Amino acid sequence: MRNVRAAAAQMGPIQKADSREAVVARMLVLLDQAKEAGADLVVYPELTLTTFFPRWYVTDQDEVDQWFEREMPNAATEPLFDRAADYGIALSLGYAELTEDGHHFNTQILTDKTGKIIGKYRKVHLPGHDEYDPERTHQHLEKRYFEPGDLGFPVWRVLDGIFGMAVCNDRRWPETYRVMGLQGVEMIVLGYNTPTVNSQKAEEAGDLRMFHNHIVVQAGAYQNACWVVSVAKAGDEDGHPLMGGSIIVNPDGVIVAQAKTEGDELLVHDCDLDATVFGKETMFDFKRHRRIEHYGLITGQTGVIPPAE
Amino acid sequence: MRNVRAAAAQMGPIQKADSREAVVARMLVLLDQAKEAGADLVVYPELTLTTFFPRWYVTDQDEVDQWFEREMPNAATEPLFDRAADYGIALSLGYAELTEDGHHFNTQILTDKTGKIIGKYRKVHLPGHDEYDPERTHQHLEKRYFEPGDLGFPVWRVLDGIFGMAVCNDRRWPETYRVMGLQGVEMIVLGYNTPTVNSQKAEEAGDLRMFHNHIVVQAGAYQNACWVVSVAKAGDEDGHPLMGGSIIVNPDGVIVAQAKTEGDELLVHDCDLDATVFGKETMFDFKRHRRIEHYGLITGQTGVIPPAE
Repeated sequence: MRNVRAAAAQMGPIQKADSREAVVARMLVLLDQAKEAGADLVVYPELTLTTFFPRWYVTDQDEVDQWFEREMPNAATEPLFDRAADYGIALSLGYAELTEDGHHFNTQILTDKTGKIIGKYRKVHLPGHDEYDPERTHQHLEKRYFEPGDLGFPVWRVLDGIFGMAVCNDRRWPETYRVMGLQGVEMIVLGYNTPTVNSQKAEEAGDLRMFHNHIVVQAGAYQNACWVVSVAKAGDEDGHPLMGGSIIVNPDGVIVAQAKTEGDELLVHDCDLDATVFGKETMFDFKRHRRIEHYGLITGQTGVIPPAE
Repeated sequence: MRNVRAAAAQMGPIQKADSREAVVARMLVLLDQAKEAGADLVVYPELTLTTFFPRWYVTDQDEVDQWFEREMPNAATEPLFDRAADYGIALSLGYAELTEDGHHFNTQILTDKTGKIIGKYRKVHLPGHDEYDPERTHQHLEKRYFEPGDLGFPVWRVLDGIFGMAVCNDRRWPETYRVMGLQGVEMIVLGYNTPTVNSQKAEEAGDLRMFHNHIVVQAGAYQNACWVVSVAKAGDEDGHPLMGGSIIVNPDGVIVAQAKTEGDELLVHDCDLDATVFGKETMFDFKRHRRIEHYGLITGQTGVIPPAE
């Protein structure tokens, strides 16, 4: 048994007017709860430190850049890193990253139990659009504010296991899980901000959207025999609702813990990394069963090429 | 609207002693029911014509070859093809194929409404093992009796849409759906024979196995915005139980019809191929969202290569 007591730190809404310091104060409350629960790892959502700003159409780049972090940790988050190190708890959190050379990414980091950042991931699958779209009920301008991640889907050895990360829309793409699965990933941690309403199909039912939120994670966990900790930022941000439904999923694809609220809420579960072994050695023993000679289109073309009429 | 009234023709058990003719007589009853229901397409399961013989360890190749068909249609199945053509119903069925040059495949074919075979698929993902395994509760010798399919995952234009096929274990692999999704597939038809008991983990719960049976299909349908018709051969074959749970799944990944029995049973559903358009043009608009520069491992390596210690 290689047990990781994982905590999914769902965050309730963050308003435009909320400061980083106010957010970190809430994160510290969840961290204290995680310490009390004996957690080894706390996972916070995508863009933990700010409101989900891609819903706002902003043309002034300086104004946009206020949502971004130039370094991590920084003055606002240093108390979080310090306390996690003091507690001996590993952290993962998402934030908007502005690099020294001016690149913008939707980033997530992972620390070890000493607070040292050992892994960085930059969101590969950016949803939405890059110009103002008057036909949508709300904007989703991730393709405007971010560049696609340039780091691939690496994995890291930490907490006596193999860990990977993903961000929000990445979880809907089976390629995300498979690239990490091919590196032996045992736990994937990810965060999301998912509007309760489909901006292009307002009548889409909320329970269908929650089903989609879960089924992609469950299938990815099962098909790669790994744990997934999937963490929401939820609730009403300045009149725009985000869904909750944070979950911890086992290597059978079964939900073993699920958030009940749309507020700050901690889920804790004991995740035995050895529970990944059976699936990896039988049904999903890739080396015996995969047939890459027939998968060429997956990397050979980006879009659909239908057969001739 | 491009409606295809699809019928999933689940088959109950077929014993070792049952003749092809007896099986085809049962298939004709289901075909008559499909005609009565106004179906455009009837999908029968994997290895429709025989018992699920990979559970038997046989060393005499002549005895093995008795489970295989040298041509399709043949004398036993001609009545099925003739009646389907008479009814104007397209067919898909699975069978063990022995080619003129001596190759063995786990094959499925698709006809148009005139009974003409317009597509052939050979199972790519063979589960199980190739030698007798005394540690299993029952044998699963697909790797012994079949070669991996050599035709990839083609799609075909028929019934005013784009159709693809898969067989049994293929449905657990996201690559299966994605390769067809990249060709614009609108409906995937597949059949399976899945033991009720995991031969390597007898204590695995039946409801967990049914959940796996369904979640992989639901995720594949949603992530590629296509319909899937997934059809079991079910029930007790010579003391060896196979699970039922045949389903028709819509492009949202939702089960819209599900078998209630483990016997011969027909499910019918009106499947609008235009219901695939919204997903293909928004969330899963591959050309805008996929990032093949980060998927290289999927086609670059078969098995797991973990990070250095």
